[in-house]
Amino acid sequence: MLNVHLVPHTHDDVGWLKTVDQYYYGDRNNIQHAGVQYILDSVIDQLQKDPARRFIYVETAFFYRWWKQQNQSTQRIVTQLVNEGRLEFINGGWCMSDEATTHYSAVIDQMTLGLRFLNDTFGECGRPRVAWHIDPFGHAREHASIFAQMGYDGFFFGRLDYQDKARRMKTKEMEMLWRASESLTPPLADLFTGVLPNGYNPPEGFCWDQSCDDAPIRDDPDLEDYNVDEIVQKFLNAGFYKANHIIMTMGSDFQYENANLWYKNMDKLIKYVNALQAKGSKVNVLYSTPSCYLQELNLANLTWPLKTDDFFPYADDAHDFWTGYFTSRPALKLYERLSNSRLQTCNQLEVLGGPKSKSGPFGEGDSDTMKRAMGVAQHHDAVSGTEKQHVAYDYARRLATGWAHCEVLVRNSLAILSGSEAPRVFCENLNISVCPLTESSHKFSMNVYNPLGRTVSWPVRLPVNGSVYSVTDANGRAVDSQVGNVFISLKCTCYIYDMKSSCLLPLLSVSINNKSVLLYVFKFLKVTFDETTGLLSSLTNLETNQTIQLTQNFYWYNASAGNNKESPQTSGAYIFRPNSSDPFVINKTAETQIVTVSSTVQEVTQWFSPWVSQVVRLYEGHRELELEWTVGPVPVADGLGKEVITRLDTDIKSSDYFYTDSNGREVLERRKDYRPTWELKQTEPVAGNYYPINSRAYIKDDKHQLTVVTDRSQGASSLYNGSLEIMLHRRLLYDDYRGVGEPLSEPGDFSDGLVARGRLLLTFTPPDTAADVHRPLAQGMVLQPLLSFQDGTPSANTKLEFSGLQTDLPPAVHLLTLSQWDEDTVLIRLEHQYQAKESKTHSQPVTVNLQCQRPLTMGSDTEPNGDPHFLVTSTTAVELTTYRSPPMQIRV
Amino acid sequence: MLNVHLVPHTHDDVGWLKTVDQYYYGDRNNIQHAGVQYILDSVIDQLQKDPARRFIYVETAFFYRWWKQQNQSTQRIVTQLVNEGRLEFINGGWCMSDEATTHYSAVIDQMTLGLRFLNDTFGECGRPRVAWHIDPFGHAREHASIFAQMGYDGFFFGRLDYQDKARRMKTKEMEMLWRASESLTPPLADLFTGVLPNGYNPPEGFCWDQSCDDAPIRDDPDLEDYNVDEIVQKFLNAGFYKANHIIMTMGSDFQYENANLWYKNMDKLIKYVNALQAKGSKVNVLYSTPSCYLQELNLANLTWPLKTDDFFPYADDAHDFWTGYFTSRPALKLYERLSNSRLQTCNQLEVLGGPKSKSGPFGEGDSDTMKRAMGVAQHHDAVSGTEKQHVAYDYARRLATGWAHCEVLVRNSLAILSGSEAPRVFCENLNISVCPLTESSHKFSMNVYNPLGRTVSWPVRLPVNGSVYSVTDANGRAVDSQVGNVFISLKCTCYIYDMKSSCLLPLLSVSINNKSVLLYVFKFLKVTFDETTGLLSSLTNLETNQTIQLTQNFYWYNASAGNNKESPQTSGAYIFRPNSSDPFVINKTAETQIVTVSSTVQEVTQWFSPWVSQVVRLYEGHRELELEWTVGPVPVADGLGKEVITRLDTDIKSSDYFYTDSNGREVLERRKDYRPTWELKQTEPVAGNYYPINSRAYIKDDKHQLTVVTDRSQGASSLYNGSLEIMLHRRLLYDDYRGVGEPLSEPGDFSDGLVARGRLLLTFTPPDTAADVHRPLAQGMVLQPLLSFQDGTPSANTKLEFSGLQTDLPPAVHLLTLSQWDEDTVLIRLEHQYQAKESKTHSQPVTVNLQCQRPLTMGSDTEPNGDPHFLVTSTTAVELTTYRSPPMQIRV
Repeated sequence: MLNVHLVPHTHDDVGWLKTVDQYYYGDRNNIQHAGVQYILDSVIDQLQKDPARRFIYVETAFFYRWWKQQNQSTQRIVTQLVNEGRLEFINGGWCMSDEATTHYSAVIDQMTLGLRFLNDTFGECGRPRVAWHIDPFGHAREHASIFAQMGYDGFFFGRLDYQDKARRMKTKEMEMLWRASESLTPPLADLFTGVLPNGYNPPEGFCWDQSCDDAPIRDDPDLEDYNVDEIVQKFLNAGFYKANHIIMTMGSDFQYENANLWYKNMDKLIKYVNALQAKGSKVNVLYSTPSCYLQELNLANLTWPLKTDDFFPYADDAHDFWTGYFTSRPALKLYERLSNSRLQTCNQLEVLGGPKSKSGPFGEGDSDTMKRAMGVAQHHDAVSGTEKQHVAYDYARRLATGWAHCEVLVRNSLAILSGSEAPRVFCENLNISVCPLTESSHKFSMNVYNPLGRTVSWPVRLPVNGSVYSVTDANGRAVDSQVGNVFISLKCTCYIYDMKSSCLLPLLSVSINNKSVLLYVFKFLKVTFDETTGLLSSLTNLETNQTIQLTQNFYWYNASAGNNKESPQTSGAYIFRPNSSDPFVINKTAETQIVTVSSTVQEVTQWFSPWVSQVVRLYEGHRELELEWTVGPVPVADGLGKEVITRLDTDIKSSDYFYTDSNGREVLERRKDYRPTWELKQTEPVAGNYYPINSRAYIKDDKHQLTVVTDRSQGASSLYNGSLEIMLHRRLLYDDYRGVGEPLSEPGDFSDGLVARGRLLLTFTPPDTAADVHRPLAQGMVLQPLLSFQDGTPSANTKLEFSGLQTDLPPAVHLLTLSQWDEDTVLIRLEHQYQAKESKTHSQPVTVNLQCQRPLTMGSDTEPNGDPHFLVTSTTAVELTTYRSPPMQIRV
Repeated sequence: MLNVHLVPHTHDDVGWLKTVDQYYYGDRNNIQHAGVQYILDSVIDQLQKDPARRFIYVETAFFYRWWKQQNQSTQRIVTQLVNEGRLEFINGGWCMSDEATTHYSAVIDQMTLGLRFLNDTFGECGRPRVAWHIDPFGHAREHASIFAQMGYDGFFFGRLDYQDKARRMKTKEMEMLWRASESLTPPLADLFTGVLPNGYNPPEGFCWDQSCDDAPIRDDPDLEDYNVDEIVQKFLNAGFYKANHIIMTMGSDFQYENANLWYKNMDKLIKYVNALQAKGSKVNVLYSTPSCYLQELNLANLTWPLKTDDFFPYADDAHDFWTGYFTSRPALKLYERLSNSRLQTCNQLEVLGGPKSKSGPFGEGDSDTMKRAMGVAQHHDAVSGTEKQHVAYDYARRLATGWAHCEVLVRNSLAILSGSEAPRVFCENLNISVCPLTESSHKFSMNVYNPLGRTVSWPVRLPVNGSVYSVTDANGRAVDSQVGNVFISLKCTCYIYDMKSSCLLPLLSVSINNKSVLLYVFKFLKVTFDETTGLLSSLTNLETNQTIQLTQNFYWYNASAGNNKESPQTSGAYIFRPNSSDPFVINKTAETQIVTVSSTVQEVTQWFSPWVSQVVRLYEGHRELELEWTVGPVPVADGLGKEVITRLDTDIKSSDYFYTDSNGREVLERRKDYRPTWELKQTEPVAGNYYPINSRAYIKDDKHQLTVVTDRSQGASSLYNGSLEIMLHRRLLYDDYRGVGEPLSEPGDFSDGLVARGRLLLTFTPPDTAADVHRPLAQGMVLQPLLSFQDGTPSANTKLEFSGLQTDLPPAVHLLTLSQWDEDTVLIRLEHQYQAKESKTHSQPVTVNLQCQRPLTMGSDTEPNGDPHFLVTSTTAVELTTYRSPPMQIRV
């Protein structure tokens, strides 16, 4: 018997063409007809009509909200449906996260948020057994690894490269075992993975949703248009997999708002197809779920092909590479990443400050709003940048609202921890040098909260109006600082505002456009600029005494307008399709206007055009070179959409190879015009070689590795030997026909185009020590210190220093999560942050002796002044034995 | 307290853009999203969720089909909802009939079909109390009269002339008492009538159907987009009637497919608006029905303005008169009318033939299929001609299928009645002189069934191949007949094929285009033709010796293409909008080619153009002049849409007055550029003076009345003194923006445009005796004899004559219905067929002595040869005391 598993499902984007609220309520149906509240209403009604019916639900962000609005009677009914397996949660995260542009930290958080709600609400019966990423535009190995580590039994998705799919269809490799980590011991990160036959849609002709026009089953025999026989035959003819179980996704985007249409017709389909068994038919149709289907596959005890790389990049046709969204909406991508940092800080301070941080001197605060906002932002049309403009604004607004709730919590917590309730402000706009308090106050204090598990050195730039400041640390010791910029203009006029003799530096040479400028700071790096172009020309690691030639410049690809002969495909929010493989250079030479030289920082500012500039910086004590780029407003008055990259050209013999991270965690090897498991016919020599980077990319040869650590997710490639390019910004003139219906052309504050600014941190080392630098550097970029400011001098009894840790964590150990779980419980996640073999020193097992302890009675009414600090209650040794170990979740 | 009655309803067209089956099943949703099966599923589910919720359902054609598909459990639930008044049937006919183009006979039948189903299924609780014609495009007085006579408590509709509506809004005359008959003694035909405030739609902003884009109520207080206060305020600001009860139609076309959307939001609206009562608000919102609302109005004991005319024509703007559909699809309109005649015949023969007529020698037959097909055809987008082409074909197909079922019944019945089971054929195409049997057989018999309650003279034309036939009646007596045409060509060559000396006629003069041609037959009428034009020139009543000048010709109005400056309105299926008030003449002269002269008929054929011709006929023993027109294919290659009329211009001093019937029953006076109850600002001098005629129109002065009896519904007007014009055919190039989305351009059999053929019967009499002629003439046109044919000579024992009546009914009495009600019961409807005062002789009370009698045991198995004739079982005297009396329904 061939068993056809009908899987009724709805795919509910947590924002896309409409905001998540609009989707929930069914508002703005003129944009897209979709109302999730009604979907759940309707499905629950229809499930009750027949115990054979099944439904799966995926996005907990929506389910959670719906659940809250139901009365007890409905909640009881739903619970029973869940207990009986008629309603099954699948995937179960807050959203169905994007896989190219998300950071694993935020993915784990959003999965936790959703799964916890399901667990709290339904217990074991609510636990999703299957991961279900039917829509994301390519699939990251790290996602599969996370799913495996979370205990999912399998993973289904819909989209993969069309060539890969065709091959797998042919060789019957649509189902496989994905070994998703190079570090974890198998089968720790092994996951059964299936590609769905019709994406996530029903077979052609069998879409019975209100949004479809397929013929319903007309089974009134008196009827002129009686079509049962025809429909049944069509179904039997549908191309099935050659197994005795096949899965059919019966649903699609926002379907089942009126579930009756689906179920009524599927009931008939099942009835009439199965009735043919009496006449010898070997086809059995049944309502099912992915986990039921998977269970049947497991019983079949088959062997699956092995998959060890990932599913990037995704192309659905020869000129249709979904590699543009790796960079789309760079400012939103940065804001999402910063918000993750803030949320971790908020979580930590909620724990450290105790219950009063949620209700304290500054009012009511919470981390839940930010958690939900971050959960929503992980959606595959959120941080991915593939949503409509008004929806992008809504995501940003949610993050800002989340932070506003966190701010209160953080203020309360810092008041508790410092013993001072003096007002405290946060400066949101330091990236554009705006902070009203520091600009107006002659005396202020800055608090720094570092959410990392170890000490970090972090340069701070503040706008001030005075010219001489004394800067001291908590102990009254002077801190290296500098007021104002130190200009060395093109004309070599030199104004030096120096404080505390910071000019006593080994400044070897300063000269612009006549000869090389060297920046040589504090022993680690030497940088030279080309004397004629003003561009970077070389990089020297002074510790190893290695030098590479390094030229860096900015270019733009002309986005395809869809008018060439191969294909009408345009570049858009999803798709990257340059008109030519050769980008236009913004400027062959940089106007190198400003150099700052002090004991803390050395800066060169390069102007490439009115809309592209860069500050090159070296900091005291740092091993990285910082490139702070500013791109925009990208001009499009010439009718040309532009995709702006920066390219680093070196004499590293990287050949066709380069390396990109997966969701900020493990790094995968990439090779130009090549896919590890199938023979690629390359049709887009640029776009077809782009890969997502979330935290870093590098090129290397035997001796040299140049690593770029980024501040947000971007697209990157290496198209030439020794070259690494990163796409920074995109402004386009056409929609790319994947549904969003808008050209990606962010208006920015002044409606003339968005200005994006960001940082690339370059490290140059031998390959075998590279990770020792880029791992902590990248974690420091992800979890940035939180600065807050108070006017005047702290009062006498203010506690100026505090640490939640008794000592730094070992270098290999990362504090992924420290978060209040419930009143009595704290969640701590520690992970080994080095991939297998990447570091001689750190890719080794490590043991952490946990002595984290808070009084369990804390926050009770009987204890008015509960000490918010940890008390020793137990000692736990946590052995992080696998490199890139799964985060250990410890509840204290 | 102002009570706002929310009336949840759906308006389900029984065919329009999709066929009735497609609407029922939700097929072809690419044309229009609509699936009635789901509407009823959904509403029943939602009604169960809250006893406060209400719903009304209107179209029994749909409900009947849905009900049949439900299981007992659902049927029980529905019955309970009906019994509790939560689901209420309104109107309740098989469809919501058109009012301009339907015949009262078919309207009564379709209402009976629907109401009977409701009564059989739900008893008294299923009885609709309110008539509900929210969509028909103008309202006929006869419809209101029928509703009043059927016992409805009130009538609501949506569409009336925009000027009239504006005035009524201003003077608060939106609700009125309609005195709907000039013949029936008040209050027999009095009906409370209300115009709905928003047509049949919800107030702006409050449409919560899945088909609408209005904002749902977002009542989650955490929500950025919380909109309860705004929505409540908007509702309170909606312009209410100045009464303490107002009705709001919450629904529209095919809405409530997902009733949850509506009810969920209305629940919230009621909750939040009524919550304001605690703060002093005087607004109370409730779920209601039209009958609840009407009951409240009755309790208020108000006085209503009186309405005695009708609501034609309907205009929704200055250049948007819905007077085109009076004529649209002339062939469908004729077929529907003929089908009514056939259905009455089928019904009568089912009674007369007894149970074996449904299962007899020719198989299984029934009248139900035809009843339902006719029920559906009465819909306001069916016989009205305002449906899409494919739907028009579907209506015709249904009628043909209905007739196929009836044919079997009729064959069985005639076999029973005649005692002969010899095969019997019906010739469907006699109108184009095709009948295979008569064309091939040298000897055949013709059976004639006359469904009228009295003897009728009916000319028959058959195609034959022989040249000499002997024609005899049942008693072997020769019948006046003639084989072949008698040609008198333009060149005066005369070929006479004469049989049995039929040329001995008082043929006074035959001459074409040289001088007048006179047709003068058998004492009643004299017709002359103009010697130069070939057109009719005069008409003489030889009984009264009155003569009028009469010119008749064909013209076409150029249909507006919507490109003139007053308005972009085009002529279309609904709208008649000539580009100019002056029509183009097809031809100033007619080529008058053929004259037939015999003892039975005299004919002149006029050719006006390749696509317009006419046969003018006088029959022996008849008082009418027959004009058989043929129009089409209407040429549109010149890019001009054409609306073809014939105009009769006389010297009758009719001034601005003319007369048109209402649904084939009472006649109303019309006056050019005038409305009886409101001051018309005439903006369309032609279209704004068009009225529907269903059976007749006339003009008159003190001495003369020229009446035209038609074979189908048409549009007519009198734009000049002494003139009467009738629109015959329309072929257009543009849609008229009322939803049908197609230009009305019927392709016909050869895709070059439909050819329409029809008959106008002219009677010319003094006004006071006109009805004595046109009433029986029109009834004879409505109920035509059914002809059937048998090859060869009937066998010896064949009964050649039969009558279901012992004697003719009195001249004033019309047998409206003779139909099997159930096994033991027969329905007979008799009506007085004269309007008050129209006939000295017949507009008088009349008493019928009923001696209709059949054995109640008839058809039982124990009586193998049950005499199908009536037996006396009782005698009932039926007094038809009111002129135009309601049909007496007698169950025997």
